Amino acid sequence: MLDNLGGPVLGDRREEMLAETAPHSRNAVVLRRFLPYVIAGLFAAALLTGYNVAFAQDITSDADNLDQGSNLIWMVGAFLVFFMQAGFAFLGAGLIRSKNVTNYMTKSFMDFAMASISFWAFGFALMWGTSAAGIAGTTNFFLTDAADGQTYVDWVFQMVFAGTAATIVAGAVAERTKTQAYLAYSFIVGAVIYPLYGHWVWGGGWLGSLESIGLPAAADYAGSGVVHAVGGFIALAGAVVVGARTGKFNADGRPNHLPGHNVPFVIIGTFILFFGWFGFNINTGDSIGLNAVNTLLAGAAGAVVALYIQLVRTGRADILMACNGALAGLVGVTAPVAFVEPWSAVLIGVIAAPIMMGSVWAIENILKVDDPVGAISVHGTCGLWGILAVGIFANGNNGVEGLVAGNGTQIVSQLISMGVVLAWALVTGFAMFLLLKYTMGVRATREEELQGMDLAEHDLPAYDY
Amino acid sequence: MLDNLGGPVLGDRREEMLAETAPHSRNAVVLRRFLPYVIAGLFAAALLTGYNVAFAQDITSDADNLDQGSNLIWMVGAFLVFFMQAGFAFLGAGLIRSKNVTNYMTKSFMDFAMASISFWAFGFALMWGTSAAGIAGTTNFFLTDAADGQTYVDWVFQMVFAGTAATIVAGAVAERTKTQAYLAYSFIVGAVIYPLYGHWVWGGGWLGSLESIGLPAAADYAGSGVVHAVGGFIALAGAVVVGARTGKFNADGRPNHLPGHNVPFVIIGTFILFFGWFGFNINTGDSIGLNAVNTLLAGAAGAVVALYIQLVRTGRADILMACNGALAGLVGVTAPVAFVEPWSAVLIGVIAAPIMMGSVWAIENILKVDDPVGAISVHGTCGLWGILAVGIFANGNNGVEGLVAGNGTQIVSQLISMGVVLAWALVTGFAMFLLLKYTMGVRATREEELQGMDLAEHDLPAYDY
Amino acid sequence: MLDNLGGPVLGDRREEMLAETAPHSRNAVVLRRFLPYVIAGLFAAALLTGYNVAFAQDITSDADNLDQGSNLIWMVGAFLVFFMQAGFAFLGAGLIRSKNVTNYMTKSFMDFAMASISFWAFGFALMWGTSAAGIAGTTNFFLTDAADGQTYVDWVFQMVFAGTAATIVAGAVAERTKTQAYLAYSFIVGAVIYPLYGHWVWGGGWLGSLESIGLPAAADYAGSGVVHAVGGFIALAGAVVVGARTGKFNADGRPNHLPGHNVPFVIIGTFILFFGWFGFNINTGDSIGLNAVNTLLAGAAGAVVALYIQLVRTGRADILMACNGALAGLVGVTAPVAFVEPWSAVLIGVIAAPIMMGSVWAIENILKVDDPVGAISVHGTCGLWGILAVGIFANGNNGVEGLVAGNGTQIVSQLISMGVVLAWALVTGFAMFLLLKYTMGVRATREEELQGMDLAEHDLPAYDY
Repeated sequence: MLDNLGGPVLGDRREEMLAETAPHSRNAVVLRRFLPYVIAGLFAAALLTGYNVAFAQDITSDADNLDQGSNLIWMVGAFLVFFMQAGFAFLGAGLIRSKNVTNYMTKSFMDFAMASISFWAFGFALMWGTSAAGIAGTTNFFLTDAADGQTYVDWVFQMVFAGTAATIVAGAVAERTKTQAYLAYSFIVGAVIYPLYGHWVWGGGWLGSLESIGLPAAADYAGSGVVHAVGGFIALAGAVVVGARTGKFNADGRPNHLPGHNVPFVIIGTFILFFGWFGFNINTGDSIGLNAVNTLLAGAAGAVVALYIQLVRTGRADILMACNGALAGLVGVTAPVAFVEPWSAVLIGVIAAPIMMGSVWAIENILKVDDPVGAISVHGTCGLWGILAVGIFANGNNGVEGLVAGNGTQIVSQLISMGVVLAWALVTGFAMFLLLKYTMGVRATREEELQGMDLAEHDLPAYDY
Repeated sequence: MLDNLGGPVLGDRREEMLAETAPHSRNAVVLRRFLPYVIAGLFAAALLTGYNVAFAQDITSDADNLDQGSNLIWMVGAFLVFFMQAGFAFLGAGLIRSKNVTNYMTKSFMDFAMASISFWAFGFALMWGTSAAGIAGTTNFFLTDAADGQTYVDWVFQMVFAGTAATIVAGAVAERTKTQAYLAYSFIVGAVIYPLYGHWVWGGGWLGSLESIGLPAAADYAGSGVVHAVGGFIALAGAVVVGARTGKFNADGRPNHLPGHNVPFVIIGTFILFFGWFGFNINTGDSIGLNAVNTLLAGAAGAVVALYIQLVRTGRADILMACNGALAGLVGVTAPVAFVEPWSAVLIGVIAAPIMMGSVWAIENILKVDDPVGAISVHGTCGLWGILAVGIFANGNNGVEGLVAGNGTQIVSQLISMGVVLAWALVTGFAMFLLLKYTMGVRATREEELQGMDLAEHDLPAYDY
Repeated sequence: MLDNLGGPVLGDRREEMLAETAPHSRNAVVLRRFLPYVIAGLFAAALLTGYNVAFAQDITSDADNLDQGSNLIWMVGAFLVFFMQAGFAFLGAGLIRSKNVTNYMTKSFMDFAMASISFWAFGFALMWGTSAAGIAGTTNFFLTDAADGQTYVDWVFQMVFAGTAATIVAGAVAERTKTQAYLAYSFIVGAVIYPLYGHWVWGGGWLGSLESIGLPAAADYAGSGVVHAVGGFIALAGAVVVGARTGKFNADGRPNHLPGHNVPFVIIGTFILFFGWFGFNINTGDSIGLNAVNTLLAGAAGAVVALYIQLVRTGRADILMACNGALAGLVGVTAPVAFVEPWSAVLIGVIAAPIMMGSVWAIENILKVDDPVGAISVHGTCGLWGILAVGIFANGNNGVEGLVAGNGTQIVSQLISMGVVLAWALVTGFAMFLLLKYTMGVRATREEELQGMDLAEHDLPAYDY
């Protein structure tokens, strides 16, 4: 199947496909021609910088910075989080129509690659570099200031989190978004949008320093906000700018059900995400066990509650909702995972499931926004729930105290953090997708959409049995 | 695809589906209504208990109990064993007909979630709590007595083993069992059946203390008996109570071959299980390497022998049998993995394959029991072989001596353990499934079965290409 | 689906299938009958040896050899590399036609099992035993001299690398190679071909001792040459000896495009391989982080560059090429991973993608060789690139200096190593496949090929929806 380089199949179709893939916009053609050179230029710049600055480095010069045990934990966690990319790819692919599967999985695969390059070039520096007034990091662009093994360990762990935030969006804009625009989005989110909020909460920025105004630091242990809410609300912006799939809403605004194509893909996607989540919520300290207990229980509780709610509502065992219930519980427990008791983790999952289901309903029926996979609700809405849950259930573990510990100040910081992440993700998300809309164009044509993105943009159906 | 909450599709079909899914039993309707509140009540009780008792805990109070290195090993092992859930889901799904795939994978996904909740509430306490006369544990219900990080590490590792035992049954009762009854089963096995035998062997119970009658403790390093034999013989009880699939046996009792639907799913399921098995058989001591060597060799030998036996018998390369041969070898080496030499592991795998194949034949042609995936033979029969193998091949590693070490007493303890696990799993398995049969009902109607469980119980076909 | 032992379906078809699967060769029938006994005899010999020699071992006798932390790293790495087997199985299956999927995955599953047995029996000893004149190891056949846990840890890590080299070949010879011959190949490569070159570079052999002729030791950190180039050029020999698929080349030698059947399988295969590669390139020393950074960046850069090259060439987003671009970058960075800076890793990936694409074109259009999955280019050609890249980009990390460090001698050693691996893999590969061709026969009949290998050799279609 790889035996097609320069083969007649593509050779003959090249101009035809160029036309097909950008029938409505000269910009798209111009940019398709232009973007590769932008990328190439970036690589050249990166390499030049790297060469000039990093040349003299010797990784072995800083051995004593390394702690083999804890570094291995971070590495194992990072590998598991990397694998979550496959989970997102399969979960989303299963929930959409088979005519768009190659297209969706192309985006879901490439967004990690694009975000890796941009996070290496810019994102890591903006998030973790020396902070300028708590607003942004300013050092270690292209990893050129890294002078020890510890920094590399940290980079990998941070990188896979950035990649997770990036890929959350793919599902919400699936089945109608141009691949070129999505690739550009992936580059931007890893370069700027994710890292800046991350800097504010984790990287030494102002949200992590609310003591200055007499409040405890906003707490988000593993990223309900930094990763999931950011990704989820950028996804909302994207879904609004791109618009609903053709046929999703009737003239009267009544939504139609567009069934997906592969239940086993949804289930293996969920299993992989759950598996990877143990790495997402890992901990090198005393609470390595507690974090895993809370992760497992919140996910399980979310699945059970979502399944039984559907069973009572409809009489059927709705595995699709159960899978998203598990993910809702996992997103919800991500921020508080190291701060709460197992019973709280169960309750966080129990509450996350109906929150997710209500959000899915409201986004479709009130906002009239088309999110084919429920990403906005699972990651965005439940991400906010996770931030809030810290303020409620933190019992003093690792020094964070919420209402159950009799402390009412943490929840104030959490509410501030919720407002900030919501505003940041929506404002930057809309700005970015509108910019892309009026330059490259973000929306496939009606013809492409009806034909299916796989043939229109890839000339490659997902299946040939 | 998640865009269906309250949508017309389901809204219209609700009562219809309630009727469809329980046409033959008021009990089922009553229980469908009832069970959610049972679950909800349980959660409430759990949270209340947790709140009252656990409130004052501080996980950081017991740092010195923690050993970062060994805890990470247990965590890595637990994550891998968790992922085996995906392996079981795909292995079984591939071996059954496409009209029942959503149903099977729903059960295979939910049994872990259900067992997690019941093991947290009851199972862990009964298995690992302070022992009452070697019969059952009595402390740490709802994890409320856990006061240190070590306990949480242990809980996760134990939980994923309980989940494995639970999910073994799904395949044996596939294609004709009501989802509601299976969910109830999952809850019960994680709450009581698995933990009690586990307590006897691992948790300080009587089988681990046979010294009192002059015998060495029954040895089961990683659970050939505690996990696999228990799951396998509960599966036998379930398959008998539920009965054979319509069309499996002719009037004269001659079995028909009902082909599965997806060979790649069988293979990825087996790969995932093999991968996870390295976590299942992991070890924190000197024999971490030996355990992995033995796991790998026993699985490989089982696959090779099963393949060549089929090649000689039928002239074809039977990958389905080879996959189950690998699993048979893995189940067989699980109990002795830390006690034997690599050459013994190879022999254990070589022997496990024909044992599995003979068992598959006998269960179908002599017992006339319908096990669509061979779970009873792979996990039950080969689980017994694993227990016995300890008594034969243990060479003194980690203090266990079998026949090859010139000690004939260990095998006596192993034979006792085999009898106990067989009796325990069958008696409790039959009791549980008969209870479910005469309350909720366990068997789908003939109409549901012919239509396929996916449409009948889920209104969701597994595939839509 | 396992319910077919002795069932009429196969029983009736046995002789028929024997005929079907070897219509053109008495040898094949003879060998099919013969091979099982060869394997059985080998097991017996192994067990006898193991029994006689290893009996007195006590794994616990050498505790002080063990370092829990670093052993866990090797184990985690080994488990991840094992899982790469599933990646190869799905990547290749997706790239071929559905009528040969059961056959391909059978080979891809069994080659690991066969290589495990032969590497245990012979390979490990030849690669890692006490060296005889730098040519071959001579001790620890059947692991009978292993007397400590450390050796077992090493064995597992080495075994999974051997298994990777073995499975690389499956894709290049897919859709037309007899399963029996492939099983024999798997046994031989794990027993002799892989281990000998491995001994020369890693096991204390002559390529690792070029100091004797005034050159630095040839460096290959994680196996661009030892694993990938060896596998890739054995694959070239296999593809040549087996010949092209019927219909691949026109009478005038013009190649036709034979599309694969499952894009999602290609993508999950690539994700699994990328995930496993973090284990492949793992490191216990200070550079554990650097290795992961370089692995991630090279793979990402390869994917991005391959995608944009295709976008410019054809106007379409070619995910199949992007997946192989990621793998090309990963193969390329495997040898230098611990010796270079991140900017070099990016450049290595950027260069690997066009090298892979040019190689795919040349192998098909110049060599007229049919490689359905591109294995020769991804693993062979890019494996050579990885060896070379050490000589260019090594900056002194871990004591290896290439051109960027101002040292021109390392590249000479690398060029020697490239020539040796190329010659070794091709000579032994051709010898082995020609031997198999004139004994068992390697090529399926035209009838089998047109019917599809799944029905012809397995009587088992991959799918039944």
